Amino acid sequence: MSNPLKQGAVIGILGGGQLGRMLSMAAARLGFKTHVFEPGANPPAQDVCHQVTTAPYTDVAALEKFAKSVDLITFEFENVPADALDLLETLRPVLPQRRALATSQDRIVEKEFLSDLGIDVAPFANVENSDDLARAVERVGAPSILKTRRFGYDGKGQYRLKSRDQAQQAWSELGQEPCVLEGFVDFSHEVSVIGARSQSGEVVCYDPGQNVHKNGILDTTTAPAKMVGSQRMDAVLLTGKILNALDYVGVMGVELFVTPKGLIVNEIAPRVHNSGHWTQDGCAIDQFEQHIRAVAGWPLGDGSRHSNVLMTNLIGEDIFALEDAAQDPDVCIHLYGKAEAKAGRKMGHTNKISPRTN
Amino acid sequence: MSNPLKQGAVIGILGGGQLGRMLSMAAARLGFKTHVFEPGANPPAQDVCHQVTTAPYTDVAALEKFAKSVDLITFEFENVPADALDLLETLRPVLPQRRALATSQDRIVEKEFLSDLGIDVAPFANVENSDDLARAVERVGAPSILKTRRFGYDGKGQYRLKSRDQAQQAWSELGQEPCVLEGFVDFSHEVSVIGARSQSGEVVCYDPGQNVHKNGILDTTTAPAKMVGSQRMDAVLLTGKILNALDYVGVMGVELFVTPKGLIVNEIAPRVHNSGHWTQDGCAIDQFEQHIRAVAGWPLGDGSRHSNVLMTNLIGEDIFALEDAAQDPDVCIHLYGKAEAKAGRKMGHTNKISPRTN
Repeated sequence: MSNPLKQGAVIGILGGGQLGRMLSMAAARLGFKTHVFEPGANPPAQDVCHQVTTAPYTDVAALEKFAKSVDLITFEFENVPADALDLLETLRPVLPQRRALATSQDRIVEKEFLSDLGIDVAPFANVENSDDLARAVERVGAPSILKTRRFGYDGKGQYRLKSRDQAQQAWSELGQEPCVLEGFVDFSHEVSVIGARSQSGEVVCYDPGQNVHKNGILDTTTAPAKMVGSQRMDAVLLTGKILNALDYVGVMGVELFVTPKGLIVNEIAPRVHNSGHWTQDGCAIDQFEQHIRAVAGWPLGDGSRHSNVLMTNLIGEDIFALEDAAQDPDVCIHLYGKAEAKAGRKMGHTNKISPRTN
Repeated sequence: MSNPLKQGAVIGILGGGQLGRMLSMAAARLGFKTHVFEPGANPPAQDVCHQVTTAPYTDVAALEKFAKSVDLITFEFENVPADALDLLETLRPVLPQRRALATSQDRIVEKEFLSDLGIDVAPFANVENSDDLARAVERVGAPSILKTRRFGYDGKGQYRLKSRDQAQQAWSELGQEPCVLEGFVDFSHEVSVIGARSQSGEVVCYDPGQNVHKNGILDTTTAPAKMVGSQRMDAVLLTGKILNALDYVGVMGVELFVTPKGLIVNEIAPRVHNSGHWTQDGCAIDQFEQHIRAVAGWPLGDGSRHSNVLMTNLIGEDIFALEDAAQDPDVCIHLYGKAEAKAGRKMGHTNKISPRTN
């Protein structure tokens, strides 16, 4: 370890949702304290962190005080406003670095970055005005998906075009925000690679997991994914390429479509990722600890899997039907302590383990 | 689940050391908040719990306020003063129940309880005055160990007698406290069973682990222990007998000597136990979650082991030599966030996992 964070050091985390909560517990296991910055009251991370600051990202005094109380800053949330980051960066190291955030925050920047690396993405076109929209439809055609360039998650900010004549309506529905029109990809299944890169440039990936969505929200991830060996290798190699190109430090989630012609990157997330929750109960060192190790200057785990895992998200009222899961001795339960079980809200997840195959 | 604790309920924990810290994280995973009561300032549990009360066990107002803020009370620490428990019990359920504490707090009560159950213990005799001491030496002989009846842990409050004529000196060294003289047991190795009993009377045990001590403090636990199948069965059966006899709810640690003539119980601890830390990385549901499940009225895990584990305690300055452990991808690190690495202080532990055998 060249210059590792010392025992008792404080890691600042932007965002206090379930990802911040699980990062906080991982940091504690390694002897670090956490200070969470979160605009919303009573965030899930609050129950398991050393300190919480409740303030908006526009509160300069709160941001300064927060930064000065920590040794380094990381985030669970990729839409941290640029002004807040500008300020924080002057006070403490922020990891992963700005460029990864800037790349993933804008779907056009992201796709251009990936294309430039020689990585396949869906056909796409930029839409900032009506002329763009017409050209995009001409180029990408239908079926296709119009997505806002920024702030989309869990299927929000998206509109599916079955035919070309829906384009104008779709763009209006999305508030005529800057968008990207993405061509439909004929994929057999979606997988994720959770990759990590250390401060010394070491890259480690977990085995790809296979994702199934329901109502636009991740429902299950199964590890290992159904992939032939060469596909698995391709997935890991392209993830390494992305991490290296960004000089990345931390954990990243890379969503991939598996097609007969090869792998297509759907999107990248510069943070721990829902599709990596299976690592908590399938690996010695999980994605949360891996991220903390990376930003803290520790060596990484090797990502090896001791068990197969089926991760299932508990969405909204799923939380009230835990009886079966609690009865199953192979099911590890992870709840987020959220007060209200709103429809579509991620309340927790379960990891059902089974002996490792292949 | 007949009457399980609800999501968001608060579990009170007496004691904020590393056991309280790990109980707190387990409770959070199940969606509970924790409130830790601890006389010492800045306890390890503080970094990962919802609330801390810093007050002595004699502070009636603090105890009352604490009890009224929680839904039930459990403990990491078996020497909670009787007066404090008297008060707390009138306000909220305390689990495991009083009787287990009373039994384990006094080595004579403990040994008589075990003997009455037909469970083998070392030869022993009570020592409260000089006459007792003489009779005890006559009956138990030497080599033997004089131990204070109460408040002993990690080899403290013990004196080894090589010959009978050391008895008086030993008792003086121990402050002429009420003691027990224990006959030396010729054992091949020490094992622990971590057992659990639910509110509905279901009993579950983890596989016995094998303990090695250094300077009177647990150094390593290896799971599984070297035992033939019948010994393992005996160990589990006697643990079940103890749990049932105490109408116990929660996790208990039972330390056993393996001898050519069978198993001898060394001592019982009515709480999660250092020799059960291996379950964190060897089992789907570890001893901390098992304890929380039991006291919260949830079903228990089945204790099955997906990996073999070597648990090693990090004592005092061991904490500064983590580099090797951090480099080993099969080693899971658990640090307690303690500020000062005093000699003999438990600072953390590591679990090195390997594929499951037998």
